[in-house]
Amino acid sequence: TKTVRLAVIPGDGIGPEVVAATVPTLRAALEADGHRLDVTELDWGGERFLREGAAMPANAADLVKHSDAVLFGAVGRPDVPEHELIWGLIIGLRQQLDLAVNIRPVRAFPGVPTKVRDTDGVDLVIVRENTEGEYVGAGGVAHAGSGHDLGIEVAVHSRRAIERAAHQAFALAGRRSGRLCLVTKSNAMRYGYPLWDRVVREIGAQYPEVELETVLVDAMAARMIQAPRSLDVLLTSNLFGDILSDLAAVLAGGMGMAPSANVPPGADVPGIYEPVHGSAPDIAGKGVANPVACLLSGALLLDDLGHTGAAGRIREAVGDALRDARNHTADLGGNATTADVSAAVLHAL
Amino acid sequence: TKTVRLAVIPGDGIGPEVVAATVPTLRAALEADGHRLDVTELDWGGERFLREGAAMPANAADLVKHSDAVLFGAVGRPDVPEHELIWGLIIGLRQQLDLAVNIRPVRAFPGVPTKVRDTDGVDLVIVRENTEGEYVGAGGVAHAGSGHDLGIEVAVHSRRAIERAAHQAFALAGRRSGRLCLVTKSNAMRYGYPLWDRVVREIGAQYPEVELETVLVDAMAARMIQAPRSLDVLLTSNLFGDILSDLAAVLAGGMGMAPSANVPPGADVPGIYEPVHGSAPDIAGKGVANPVACLLSGALLLDDLGHTGAAGRIREAVGDALRDARNHTADLGGNATTADVSAAVLHAL
Ligand SMILES: CC(C)[C@H](C(=O)O)[C@@H](O)C(=O)O
Ligand SMILES: CC(C)[C@H](C(=O)O)[C@@H](O)C(=O)O
Repeated sequence: TKTVRLAVIPGDGIGPEVVAATVPTLRAALEADGHRLDVTELDWGGERFLREGAAMPANAADLVKHSDAVLFGAVGRPDVPEHELIWGLIIGLRQQLDLAVNIRPVRAFPGVPTKVRDTDGVDLVIVRENTEGEYVGAGGVAHAGSGHDLGIEVAVHSRRAIERAAHQAFALAGRRSGRLCLVTKSNAMRYGYPLWDRVVREIGAQYPEVELETVLVDAMAARMIQAPRSLDVLLTSNLFGDILSDLAAVLAGGMGMAPSANVPPGADVPGIYEPVHGSAPDIAGKGVANPVACLLSGALLLDDLGHTGAAGRIREAVGDALRDARNHTADLGGNATTADVSAAVLHAL
Repeated sequence: TKTVRLAVIPGDGIGPEVVAATVPTLRAALEADGHRLDVTELDWGGERFLREGAAMPANAADLVKHSDAVLFGAVGRPDVPEHELIWGLIIGLRQQLDLAVNIRPVRAFPGVPTKVRDTDGVDLVIVRENTEGEYVGAGGVAHAGSGHDLGIEVAVHSRRAIERAAHQAFALAGRRSGRLCLVTKSNAMRYGYPLWDRVVREIGAQYPEVELETVLVDAMAARMIQAPRSLDVLLTSNLFGDILSDLAAVLAGGMGMAPSANVPPGADVPGIYEPVHGSAPDIAGKGVANPVACLLSGALLLDDLGHTGAAGRIREAVGDALRDARNHTADLGGNATTADVSAAVLHAL
């Protein structure tokens, strides 16, 4: 018997709803294998900001370090400045824990309607660099307010971060199809992305079994929709990974279907597992949010902790539930509630 | 009788093929209104680079300044370093002529198959800032080759450039649906995009008849595919416009269908009109390239020179031709040649 110590940050909006639909499933899947789930709930997010002036405590990274993993719902509420929740919580935590990559798998489940034709069999993974690039927060505004304001945004791409992401991506590609697609924009940006191209090619020499292709981000956006089955593992920067993963989610039915894992380079800190979607204030509190992205994030979490059997069973149960349109929430064109879906998944499990 | 003085840069790969399919159409459309087309062909591009060491002459901007407009095919060939053609020609020329915005309309023509379901009636325009942002070419690599290389990419967003683009976008939105969607990423990037948000909101006060919405680029990528009819005019930065316009082209059948206009802020320099696609070396020389993107770029060109009747007739002729699948090139799943399509369009004209 092992005990999984899970820190849970439900957050704002639909965050608590999708997390509540996920935790019992994780518990059931673990218990079926004779293991235990031990949950510590953290009240970080918008409400805490309004109450205490900070979305999370100053020692947040220390507080979660002793967990095996963190399950994160979503943050964002209309009455809290966005940067307090973005920099003050999710980007802050990713950077403080130095969670090197963000793994974003997209898989089309049979029976789920999509706006893109012919998505059967789509099954790809975006490996997004997660600590720097365009998201370092460096830059400034010159001549502010003078009528000649100049906004300067500085992106930082370090060999170290590129190498870490590249190793993860090549290893993953090696376990999958043996094909890796690097996405950059080196024809128009002259320093950061050419460094990506160079470093990833170098690292590739250590993975002769993986075939490397380099594609421009604009071309990739079109190809993602036009030929998604030509893609398996994608490796890209923080910003491009952000854009491409929202786009890829469309292939699976939308943002309600897209899980993610913020993964540390070593095993010394926990990963953060989170649906790619946000807090969706417009539908919060109605019990109609799609919990699939969060459930699949839970499966990624179990995978990374070595509970691959339990993870696989959750994925299968999600697939079984989704085959029946009565388990489709509004975002998929159905009228199931969050509770309907989680009950169906638990039942299939 | 007016004479349109057109500078033509066929360029590389399929560039000369699509340009050759377009010029006679422009001429026919103008002559039907009693006007003339006077063409100056410029041999700028990859071959010139191989011959003379530069893709275009040093005084290129001066050479085209006296034309009414420039029609540009595409550049890029495997045996020429990409930056010689990108910075040495197309980005260079956009920046030297200070072509403030890049207008990229996307319209779904009836009868053209698309990978996205339910695109009937899609008709949107991306207004892309065209002179700066992530494409200024500023930055550098620190510690190059030391094993600790740091690629630094500096994006510059000036109030002046944002204002110019915003005025064009608001004016265009005012002539169309009255809705403008600004695409930024101000939750994760703290200086350039917040300046965009601020300046565009300010300029918006001068256009009370236009409703302004601000959307994050990642969310927009998904929405572009999931709800394209919710979009009319989009305003965005150089990089985001690049990515979103390739993506939007998918709604119309792909890159072979997407025209663009690089537009000056005043009337003192000519605009550059070009298909969004590249030189496609893989199909070059076979006569199978889709000329529609170039033909529609020609229509934009005539529009901007005040020949709106001729422009409209070209668009109608393209639409008529495309209704018949026998005029679909390989990219649209057909087997028409470039010459077939241009003959059909000329005939419909
Ligand atoms: C909330 C936001 C900063 C975040 C990001 O851009 O990383 C989100 O869009 C995501 O994709 O996880
Ligand atoms: C060739 C390249 C630099 C160019 C760009 O990114 O601007 C192209 O992709 C485009 O969209 O016109």
